[in-house]
Order: sequence, then C-alpha cells, then structure tokens
Amino acid sequence: MKSSLFLERVRKEKPLVHHLTNWVTIGDCAAVVKAFGAAPVMAHAAEEVADMADIASSLVLNIGTLTSDFVEAMKLAAKKANQKGIPVVLDACGAGATAFRDQKSLELLNGVRINILKGNASEIARIAGEDVRTKGVESFGVDKNLTVLAKDLSKERNCIVIITGSIDIVVDKDKVYRVLNGCEVMGNIVGTGCMSTSSVGTFAAVAQDNLAEAAAAGLCCFEIAAELAAEKAKGPWDFKMRLFDEIYALDSKVVDKRQKIE
Amino acid sequence: MKSSLFLERVRKEKPLVHHLTNWVTIGDCAAVVKAFGAAPVMAHAAEEVADMADIASSLVLNIGTLTSDFVEAMKLAAKKANQKGIPVVLDACGAGATAFRDQKSLELLNGVRINILKGNASEIARIAGEDVRTKGVESFGVDKNLTVLAKDLSKERNCIVIITGSIDIVVDKDKVYRVLNGCEVMGNIVGTGCMSTSSVGTFAAVAQDNLAEAAAAGLCCFEIAAELAAEKAKGPWDFKMRLFDEIYALDSKVVDKRQKIE
Amino acid sequence: MKSSLFLERVRKEKPLVHHLTNWVTIGDCAAVVKAFGAAPVMAHAAEEVADMADIASSLVLNIGTLTSDFVEAMKLAAKKANQKGIPVVLDACGAGATAFRDQKSLELLNGVRINILKGNASEIARIAGEDVRTKGVESFGVDKNLTVLAKDLSKERNCIVIITGSIDIVVDKDKVYRVLNGCEVMGNIVGTGCMSTSSVGTFAAVAQDNLAEAAAAGLCCFEIAAELAAEKAKGPWDFKMRLFDEIYALDSKVVDKRQKIE
Repeated sequence: MKSSLFLERVRKEKPLVHHLTNWVTIGDCAAVVKAFGAAPVMAHAAEEVADMADIASSLVLNIGTLTSDFVEAMKLAAKKANQKGIPVVLDACGAGATAFRDQKSLELLNGVRINILKGNASEIARIAGEDVRTKGVESFGVDKNLTVLAKDLSKERNCIVIITGSIDIVVDKDKVYRVLNGCEVMGNIVGTGCMSTSSVGTFAAVAQDNLAEAAAAGLCCFEIAAELAAEKAKGPWDFKMRLFDEIYALDSKVVDKRQKIE
Repeated sequence: MKSSLFLERVRKEKPLVHHLTNWVTIGDCAAVVKAFGAAPVMAHAAEEVADMADIASSLVLNIGTLTSDFVEAMKLAAKKANQKGIPVVLDACGAGATAFRDQKSLELLNGVRINILKGNASEIARIAGEDVRTKGVESFGVDKNLTVLAKDLSKERNCIVIITGSIDIVVDKDKVYRVLNGCEVMGNIVGTGCMSTSSVGTFAAVAQDNLAEAAAAGLCCFEIAAELAAEKAKGPWDFKMRLFDEIYALDSKVVDKRQKIE
Repeated sequence: MKSSLFLERVRKEKPLVHHLTNWVTIGDCAAVVKAFGAAPVMAHAAEEVADMADIASSLVLNIGTLTSDFVEAMKLAAKKANQKGIPVVLDACGAGATAFRDQKSLELLNGVRINILKGNASEIARIAGEDVRTKGVESFGVDKNLTVLAKDLSKERNCIVIITGSIDIVVDKDKVYRVLNGCEVMGNIVGTGCMSTSSVGTFAAVAQDNLAEAAAAGLCCFEIAAELAAEKAKGPWDFKMRLFDEIYALDSKVVDKRQKIE
C-alpha cells in the first residue's frame, strides 16, 4: 500500500470531518484536519450532531474531557453516521484512569458501531478487560502481547483496533499493519494522540471501503510530517508549530520514500 | 476614513470585549483582542454574563460550537448590552449547515438587538432566507449578488451586515464599504473568520456611534497584519503565529499606506 | 531555598496534575505542566473528578470560565484531594469582576480546604473583602499594602496566599517570599496568569510538606523561563511559543544563577 495515494485523495476530496473531541486539544485537532486539506467541524449540541454527521464524511469521537451529556451527543452523531455508512473513530483517551471512562467507552462500543477504536497500550488493554491502570492520559506498561490483544479485541468488537506507541499497530481481525514512522519528541508535547486520531479520521473519510489501510496511511503521513518537523525543531513546542506546516506541505514522493509500514 | 485612527483609539482606551464564542478558537479570539491592545473576557455562565456585559464596551457572539444553554446565556448578555447601548456582534458561524444553527441565529436576531451580523457568503445568504447549504463552516457558492443581498438584509434587520470573502463587504443600509485587504493564506488555517469577528468587536467597542466604519477598520487592520505576516511566513501555521505579533506591532503609517477600502 | 531542587524533583517524579480550568487557556496550562516534565489531566465530569483527583498529586482549580456545575465538580475533586492530603490550588481568576465570581470563590474557600489561593492584586483584595473592581480579568490599582492584606488573608483562611504582579508575593501566615523574576512581556499575552498557576500546582505536587517554598519555586522557574524566552523573542506571541521550550530546557544552574527570591 502507498500512504501517499490516500493523502492525495484527502487533498482532492476535502472531506468534512465531524469531531466530538477533547477541549484541551480541540484547536490542534481542527488544525491537523485543515492542514491535510480537509474540513474540520466540531459541533456537539445534541440538537444538531446528527444533522452535522449527515453532511460529514467521517466522525471522530474522543473522550478526553467527556461528560455524560457529551457522550449522549456522541451516540446521536454515531447513530446517524452508522445509518449513513460513514466511518466512526473512537479515541478511548484516558480509559483505565477512571471507572467512568471505562464505562462510557463500553457504552459507546456497545451502543453504536465503532469502526476504528484507537488508544495507547494501557487504554486499549483496559477496554479489552485487562487489569491495567492509566495515569491521567499517559500509558503504563502492559505485559500481554499487544498484537494478540488487539487481534482478539478486533474480532470480539468487529472493528479495527489501533494501539499507538513507538510502533503503532493497526489490526483488522487477523490482518496487522505496523507503522514504524514517528519520532521521540511526539511524546514530549500535549496533543499528539488526539492529533493522530484526527489524522486517522481524515484518511478514513476518503476510503470507507478500506479503513485499515486508510488508518495506517493516516498515522504514517502524520508521523512522517512529525519526523520532518523534528529534524528542524529547536524544542518540543517549536516542533509542534512546525508539524502543522509539514503536514500542509507534505510531498507524496517524500511520503513514498519515508513510509515504514510492515 | 482612516482605519489607523480607530486602531489608535483601541490602543488608548483598551476596551473590555466580552465574548461568548467558539471553543475551537477561543484562545485565538482572546489573543487577537489582546494583541490589538484591548482586554478580552470570555465569561459564559448564565449567572454572570449580564454583569460582565455591564462592564464591557462590546459583546461578541459566535455560534461556532453553540448549545441551547449557551445561546440562552448569549441572550442574557445581549439584553444587558442592548440596555447599556454597547454594540453586539454576531458571527453566524456555520449557519446553513444545520437547521439548529439557522434557528438559533434567527432566535438571536429576533430576540435581541444585533448591531453587526457577520458571516461568509453562504452563512449570510442562509440568514437572509436563501436556499444554500454550508458544509461544516466552509462557504459554498452563492449565486445572488451579495451586495444586494446584504443591503436588503441590513434594512430588514436594521443592522450592519458583513460578508467576508476575498473581498469583504460591510453594509449599513445603502452605505457599502468594500475591504480589499487580506491574503490567500488566511483561508488555509483554522480561526480566521472568528479572529476577524473579534477584531470587529474590538474596534466597535471604541466607536459606538460609527459602527460601520469601525467594523471596516477592524477588518482592514486585521487583514493588513495578515498581509505583513504572510510576506514573512514559511507556511500557514507559521503565518498564524506571526499574525498576532504583526497585530501587536501594527504601525499606523503602514495601515494608512496599505488600507484598501472603497 | 533553591528553586532548582524543586524543578529536579518535578522532572524525576513526573506528578499527575489534575486541573479544572479555564477553557481559554486549557491548552496552555496542559503545555506548561508537560513542559516541566509532569503529566497534566483535565477531567471535569462530576462522575469522575474524585477518581481522577485520587490518582493525582495535586489539584488546580481556575474559575476563569466557571459555571455553577463546573464549580460543583471542583468541590467534588477538592474534597477527594483534601481526604487524600494532596495540595489544592485555587486561581481566583476574574474575582471582583462579577458578584458570581466572588460568591463562587467564597463557596470554594468555605466549602473545601484550599491550600494555595492565587490571584492578582484586585482579585485577592476582593476575596479579602476589599471594595475593588476587576475589569474582566485585568487587575486595578489596590491601595492597601498588599503584603499586609495577604498576611491577614493567609491567617484568616489558613492557606498560602499568592499575589502576582511585577513582584509576586507568596505569603504563609507571617512568612513572606517575594519573587522578583519575570519580565514585562508576560503582561502582553493571554494566559500568563493561568500558566503560572499551573506551574505552582506542578511544583506543589512534589513538595506537599513545604508548599510555600514550592509555590515560590514554581513561580520563579516559570518566570526565569519567561526571561530567557523574552531575550530571544521578536514579539509577544513569539515569546509565548518560546516560553514552553525554555521551560522544557530549563537548566538548574541557570535557575540558581537567576533566582531572585527574597
């Protein structure tokens, strides 16, 4: 697969990517979608989320700063997305940190069709029923083999499972993509996880029949832009500022050369 | 008219500009107001919005991430602003995208006195009752002559109407200002529309008896700063970072030289 | 005291700092905590704030964009923090601007144990019962001697009181630390006050038995980073971007050399 083909499709189709996301990183998420050439929208009122999902090409849900009302709005948006057949991405941000997050993640997974579930190791392990603890939104060591865990969860939940880390794995039942791009400085800023979820949502919007490859391509392109930004950056926040412009200017040939997906 | 005179008045008077705005761009809106030398405040609790409007010099309402409760708080703030005689600016962000946004925009326009209504072509056309569709917060082609549409709406609603685009028009009944400043990169980032609304609100705060000129001056100064930032910027996000410092450092003589208002 | 010792402890222990904060600056607050090497989390749902406080090492409350529900969630988080014995920092952002802010600040001070109360001169004077008026979130002249006012309030409320300004004072009953670091440009951007509160919360997290020194150290380190950023910055927003990287790269020896605490 070539991630650059998905990137070109995003730029050509400029899909509308509807988010119900985290208040901490909402500006970053919108910026990433826009930098890729797509159109972000962040409506969250119960009265309009279904109508907004109805004109969107994908839906991104992120529970980073969830409330009960917010999750109810997520369900309304996701139901419409399901009816319409557009992909729904769920970032289980902070699952494992509190019982409320675990419960609401499961409510979403049980109540609507989630096409792509994404988190770091401890978040996904928690959703899979493992006894782990997330510290805030940071991941802790998980002993179990992550690929096995993701495969089992993918089958059980009938969805693509993404576990991010220094190597990201994208698992669709028994099919596994490993994305080896990225760089260490990504872990030194706030928002990397949320931004990579928005990247996945943006790419999923243009490849609804091939979500696993689209997801891997979204991660790969985001992380190649991160590598390019890191090479020039003087510090983590300088990196973050450069990241958006690297995404905006990302060259397909550079993507082809740098792509590391197994 | 000279936009620089309004700019100097903002810097001298440092007006308090009360916002009920969009969660995506709230930090950008505050930054723009501050960069112009004024003081932003973003209170939104129903219990205090009237008291905050009471000490402010203008009120900016932006429905970008509206909820029903949030619009109720907007009404309370606007009623106090109306009583006090300070200008109220409404950004009809995303009108045309969902029925909820249309309805809430009309509720505000019918329920309180809006002094300045602002949006892009499809948003304003929608408020005017045209059959257009906004995709998220992006504008679509509107066939009707925009100046005619704005004049009719200005008379019907007894308010100033601003339609932004590559040329901005500021219409007060039959008086029309066309602001030709600005640059293409403004369309490549998130937040330009909201920031320009905050600029209008900031300038309106110091010229309550001459709102149309103040609004045109606010757009003009914001867009001249954008031109200056774009000349140095290496990409859209580098542009955005530079924009705030260009606003902060904006020189009256440069404004006089670059101003393009017809 | 050496601020650098507290800084090193933050970097080593990487404490989780739980915030219920201001929507305008929430990203900045998270960025500062992360830049210091600690872990921010911003949960605010009533259903989970106690659980999140339970795994955190300190709690930061900021009423900048408060609502009644948000303050109720603050109380739940603070009660758990009190039980657990972790420090609670309250930024009385905008107290004095509206009766609602005054009332909610007092509700928090009366209803839960606040370990560190922080604000600018007019905010703290207002909490102390003085007849001052805050304009939005900006401070006004307060006539009374601020150190006397802070000492009295510290004794009355049995908490540390911080009054920020060109000189910051940290008062614990009769003990007074004066932090002379910082620079003028800090007043030209949005978010300095909130970010310095998050710095205090981060340092308090690693020195729960010595909160006054930790608070002074947090302010001092934040402001030394600001001095370093200001020396290189081309404008206030360039300063703000550099600030995070200066915090991230802050050298203990530089802190020792620049520290100005009396």
